[in-house]
Amino acid sequence: MNGLLPAVIQDHTSGEVLMLGFVNAEALAATQRTGEMHFFSRSRNKLWKKGETSGHVLRVREIRTDCDLDALLVRVEAVGPGVCHEGYRSCFFRQIETDGTFTVVEERVFDAADVYGKKGDA
Amino acid sequence: MNGLLPAVIQDHTSGEVLMLGFVNAEALAATQRTGEMHFFSRSRNKLWKKGETSGHVLRVREIRTDCDLDALLVRVEAVGPGVCHEGYRSCFFRQIETDGTFTVVEERVFDAADVYGKKGDA
Repeated sequence: MNGLLPAVIQDHTSGEVLMLGFVNAEALAATQRTGEMHFFSRSRNKLWKKGETSGHVLRVREIRTDCDLDALLVRVEAVGPGVCHEGYRSCFFRQIETDGTFTVVEERVFDAADVYGKKGDA
Repeated sequence: MNGLLPAVIQDHTSGEVLMLGFVNAEALAATQRTGEMHFFSRSRNKLWKKGETSGHVLRVREIRTDCDLDALLVRVEAVGPGVCHEGYRSCFFRQIETDGTFTVVEERVFDAADVYGKKGDA
């Protein structure tokens, strides 16, 4: 995994799983220092702060690690209507059916084009 | 990621995040076919069913995928007192403090040695 750990982002009040991202040591340190969630982008190969474009930052309430120390669970207060760049509250808005097709099971809560323009990932 | 996707395992009633594992296409197919969660073990390089040693299987209620189709959220009914091979309900039983130390924030709910003997990971 090249020093990257998966980080599960969970709403600290509702328990909803909002997204999953990856962190390296630098992203974890920036998260701890600022109290706002930072990730390492595998596609762009750089540190990024969730919400740097949208303002939909994740305020960290608690960081947990698992038994094998190879994953994080970060409980957050999510600022704004949703975390997903497609306009949903959670990135996990699609169910996989037994036949392999997808069904959207959440309501869209904001207009992604208004928030992100054409940039689309923070 | 060599065809592996992180899969977040969440209790379907409480919303508690229980563990994170990785799946490949074979593990996902086995999960869908049997209704019980299967993972691909990166350390042992093979398919395994959660609960194959302990009986603490994860009955799948719903499988979701995220916007980028690179992570899964699996909502489950967890059979048994806990999923963690260290005897906790969730593998995320440790909090990372701001000074980098760990604090155990969950109660141990079963005796791992009784359940797993010396094998220790299912």
